[in-house]
Amino acid sequence: MIKCVTLGIMFVEAIVVLIRQSSHFRVTRALRPIFLVDTRHCGGVRRFIRQIFQSLPPILDMLGLLLFCVSIYGLLGYFLFSADPHDQHFTTLHDSFVSMFVLLTTANFPDVMMPAYSRSKWFSIFFISYLSIVLYVLMNLMLAVVYETFTRIEKEKFRKLLLHKRKACQHAFRLLVSKKDPNRMKFKQFAGVLRYYMPKLSTRDTVLMFKELNTSSSGTLSLEEFYSVYDAALLKWDAQFSQIPWFHTTWAPVQTMCQLAHDLVTWKYFEYIIYGLILSNGIAMIARIIEATNDLEESARAFSASWDTILFVGLYVLESLLKIVGLGIMQYFSSGWNIYDFTVTLAALLGVVILYFVPSFVYVVVLRPLRLLRLFKLKKRYRDVFGTLVLLTPLMCSTAIVMLVLYYFFAIVGMELFAGYNMRNCCINTTVEDFYKYSANGSTALGYYYLNTFENLMTSGITLFELTIVNNWFILMNGYASVVSQWSRAYFMLFYISTMIVLTIVVASILEAFRFRIQYKRQTSKREEEKMLHEEVHLKWEELQSWVQDFQLLEKLRQDLVVGGTATFIGVRPRNREVLQRRMYRSEIEDWMHEAELAEQSEGYIPSTDLGDGDDDSIATGSEQGVIADTVVQSDGYQRNVTINS
Amino acid sequence: MIKCVTLGIMFVEAIVVLIRQSSHFRVTRALRPIFLVDTRHCGGVRRFIRQIFQSLPPILDMLGLLLFCVSIYGLLGYFLFSADPHDQHFTTLHDSFVSMFVLLTTANFPDVMMPAYSRSKWFSIFFISYLSIVLYVLMNLMLAVVYETFTRIEKEKFRKLLLHKRKACQHAFRLLVSKKDPNRMKFKQFAGVLRYYMPKLSTRDTVLMFKELNTSSSGTLSLEEFYSVYDAALLKWDAQFSQIPWFHTTWAPVQTMCQLAHDLVTWKYFEYIIYGLILSNGIAMIARIIEATNDLEESARAFSASWDTILFVGLYVLESLLKIVGLGIMQYFSSGWNIYDFTVTLAALLGVVILYFVPSFVYVVVLRPLRLLRLFKLKKRYRDVFGTLVLLTPLMCSTAIVMLVLYYFFAIVGMELFAGYNMRNCCINTTVEDFYKYSANGSTALGYYYLNTFENLMTSGITLFELTIVNNWFILMNGYASVVSQWSRAYFMLFYISTMIVLTIVVASILEAFRFRIQYKRQTSKREEEKMLHEEVHLKWEELQSWVQDFQLLEKLRQDLVVGGTATFIGVRPRNREVLQRRMYRSEIEDWMHEAELAEQSEGYIPSTDLGDGDDDSIATGSEQGVIADTVVQSDGYQRNVTINS
Repeated sequence: MIKCVTLGIMFVEAIVVLIRQSSHFRVTRALRPIFLVDTRHCGGVRRFIRQIFQSLPPILDMLGLLLFCVSIYGLLGYFLFSADPHDQHFTTLHDSFVSMFVLLTTANFPDVMMPAYSRSKWFSIFFISYLSIVLYVLMNLMLAVVYETFTRIEKEKFRKLLLHKRKACQHAFRLLVSKKDPNRMKFKQFAGVLRYYMPKLSTRDTVLMFKELNTSSSGTLSLEEFYSVYDAALLKWDAQFSQIPWFHTTWAPVQTMCQLAHDLVTWKYFEYIIYGLILSNGIAMIARIIEATNDLEESARAFSASWDTILFVGLYVLESLLKIVGLGIMQYFSSGWNIYDFTVTLAALLGVVILYFVPSFVYVVVLRPLRLLRLFKLKKRYRDVFGTLVLLTPLMCSTAIVMLVLYYFFAIVGMELFAGYNMRNCCINTTVEDFYKYSANGSTALGYYYLNTFENLMTSGITLFELTIVNNWFILMNGYASVVSQWSRAYFMLFYISTMIVLTIVVASILEAFRFRIQYKRQTSKREEEKMLHEEVHLKWEELQSWVQDFQLLEKLRQDLVVGGTATFIGVRPRNREVLQRRMYRSEIEDWMHEAELAEQSEGYIPSTDLGDGDDDSIATGSEQGVIADTVVQSDGYQRNVTINS
Repeated sequence: MIKCVTLGIMFVEAIVVLIRQSSHFRVTRALRPIFLVDTRHCGGVRRFIRQIFQSLPPILDMLGLLLFCVSIYGLLGYFLFSADPHDQHFTTLHDSFVSMFVLLTTANFPDVMMPAYSRSKWFSIFFISYLSIVLYVLMNLMLAVVYETFTRIEKEKFRKLLLHKRKACQHAFRLLVSKKDPNRMKFKQFAGVLRYYMPKLSTRDTVLMFKELNTSSSGTLSLEEFYSVYDAALLKWDAQFSQIPWFHTTWAPVQTMCQLAHDLVTWKYFEYIIYGLILSNGIAMIARIIEATNDLEESARAFSASWDTILFVGLYVLESLLKIVGLGIMQYFSSGWNIYDFTVTLAALLGVVILYFVPSFVYVVVLRPLRLLRLFKLKKRYRDVFGTLVLLTPLMCSTAIVMLVLYYFFAIVGMELFAGYNMRNCCINTTVEDFYKYSANGSTALGYYYLNTFENLMTSGITLFELTIVNNWFILMNGYASVVSQWSRAYFMLFYISTMIVLTIVVASILEAFRFRIQYKRQTSKREEEKMLHEEVHLKWEELQSWVQDFQLLEKLRQDLVVGGTATFIGVRPRNREVLQRRMYRSEIEDWMHEAELAEQSEGYIPSTDLGDGDDDSIATGSEQGVIADTVVQSDGYQRNVTINS
């Protein structure tokens, strides 16, 4: 709908431009990101936007309260200070309100207080009380309100998804069982529905999934067992014997060497040696900084390409090689920290090379100290922090895209409104005059503000970033207000409120993610987690024969399984949020399930109505199965909608 | 210990001053608040200080990570920008580090970027990436870490207190029962211990407490029942028939009038009429603001002392009178909102009077719109917010005192270090030159910063408040750095870090308080809460006789109870945090209790050893009882320590 309307408006506008043969005020360009956001890859972005809209009511409520305080203080400020000709902040009621609004962001403090303060010290009470109430109490309460809304929505979403999946399982189960045995589902039907739900799943994995679900080992699934189908679908299966080292089949001398490297890197003191190495590198760096000279190139070379740098980088390279050889490339790069180490070491090596060939490119000095970050891993709290950062990465990307979309929108509007004005030496006789006073010889540190323009997308973006940071944003606002129009303030204030909303939600989501992680860690021991993320399944050939009953299928499975014996497989569950949530809220989940059951009973739910004839041999790919698959796929579609859109 | 050492140092210093006959650098004056904080009334302050110290480790950890980032960017900034003579922010490594530290607080943004930005737009990436990482990610993670620590400590404190009380009850119970019946406590022993534990408790309340505890109605208390003694001690008792209106016994016509007023104010639409009144008052105010003239006194009179003001204030007075008459003074003033209404109405009335007699005192205009705040009560979310504010009042007071102590400390040090310097027209050739350039005719809005001095306690306090707000704080820091010494930066940076720590904890505690309140409200319905906060006890005379067995006591109780019949009493529990916590954590409490029981069993706890001979008639006030009381009082002392100190 939104896309259609936007497209319509854009089309009409294009025609208008074609007819009038001149460009006019074209804000619809600002709406273009809508088409970007509504693509398959921007699921996270849509979810974030939805979170923003869901958190809007509490934010708007709190904004109302804030504006009430701003108005009252604006009124009082006008009556207190407007009589003073030196005080330009409170000349009219409108000025007074703007000053108090800017003061809400602290950007014009203490300047706004100073004229009054020079008259009497006691006027400071007005400003101190205002900032204490608005900034320290109300703004923090706003964060609290948003945070509370945010966590509630998160939990509610999980609950709804869970109950919806349960419902989908019930529907699918009802359609998949036969009339003869309305309470048990056979393997054939299970495999049939999976062929639609997960078409890429191999036969082996289907069998393993069935076995995993069938906790009673009865050979048929009950509804209770089938409920876990979504959970079991997440598991990635691997034969148990895949845990042996990679060099197991190589040439004997290589094998001995690799074994030695393996023993070394898994030696318990190896990590400490590396930490010692990093620490001494840090000390060497500090020494290099202390003896730095005024010649930039020389000190850069001493810092980043001297003998000690080469020594330490060489040792790091050795460490990486040892680990890669000892653990195998796959296992080495499966750890985020190892990737970080490898990248930083490579970059430092590159830095040395660059400094030798292009000595003026001194910026690579920053590459050497990066490895020091590894030291922070030693402490548990930092591990939590970095872990949260990794967890937050997708969210951060979504936030970044949302911010970029917001920037794009406001940049386009800003360019339409403010492009082409020369701000140099503008705003004479206003409070921001000094900030725009350009002096060619550069004797003063101020006067650079004329650079903050809306000429093109890039400068607009940087100008908007300055507004996001809030500090001194009123200089830009007042500058454009005096050059363009008093009404342009609305643009800046709206932008401030928009970014404030987005940033409050960012803070709330960081808080939520961190607390979730910490509480999860506290409730779950390392062993419990391992057990939760690893499922072991033992497949007996005889047992398999009894419930598969399909010769062709058994033939296919022959290569993966031990014929006549038992094969063990390990299923690894991804450590995604939903899986962790299921563990975290396990007591609540029980309550919800119980509630759902009560509701079903009061609705008079009879599990054996509406049965498809699952026993008919020919229908494994028949229309009934199609319907069943539809139900599941449909419900899964809803699920994906819930997880992606919301 | 701390007090002793401080006193010793102060004494030595006083002697040194006496001998040298001249005042020297006297920082110990800054330590004086220690004596203030360590008084009986500052329990909340001590608790808050303890919270700060408990939250310090995570804050310091995160500060370490922050400083690592600041250092790396400082290094890179030095190599990027120090070659530019126009850029004074990165001249030396030291300057570069200071600039990046100030940028952490956003105070010098975008000024710090501008010289580089004028050279190339791409340098903005350096600043944007820095602010994104440090300000938006790390600072928020710091808040998350502190918040998590904070809530964990709060819960742990509650758990410890609870288990400690349980232990105290066990000890007391063991000493109070007789050898004959080691599992039941009689009323006499119970009354004996209460005489020490709560000496002001009346006999009636002792009886009621016993009855409340004795849920089995057996006439003697079991250990399980005795566990609730701390909880029951909180109840305030009142006879059931105290709920009748106050005018019940007055002269008949007065009674009719009062009944009418009572019916009116309890009429369900009465509140809406008042809201309509407030709303129309708001509209009238807006009209008055729109027609405001440039003459301050005239518009103040139109706004705050015109016929419509008098009309509305008159109606408000009428409303207050009606409510007072209808509900009685006690009930009227038991509601916080009523107190607010009453105060604001009285103040507005006063404002009218003042404006008529002293027309130049225009500041009272602020009193009229205050009543509008009442409109916010209409929405649930605002009620939550205001409720949290009321809950937070004690904490806010403690915070204010802690901040004042911090200000006092830094003000004294600042006065010793920086008093007597004239900042007017200082700092030539530094980046902050313009802010100190005084112009007598006041053509420029800047140049007032010379007023921020450390002359006396008051100006120091205001200067420190400006530093707390953080905006433009580097102007003060750089000013004093160039006038006094480069090392004075340490003072300003330390102050920044101190206030940041305190404010982070303030934010965390506001978050915690709000979430606690919301979750409590969600888990507890109005009726449940009423039931929780009100206990009803029915006292039968015969039953009482059977377990009191003391003629004198029964004589005393005669006037309060119905002899031969049943008297009903209502016990009201205060809505304090501990009571709410007990309800909130009820499932956890069960776990804790269970754990404690298991621990006791493994310790081989036998409840009937160490018995005092409670059956001896003469010892109701004897030494054994003294010991028992000691145990309870002692444990209560610990409890009070826990609640007050921590």
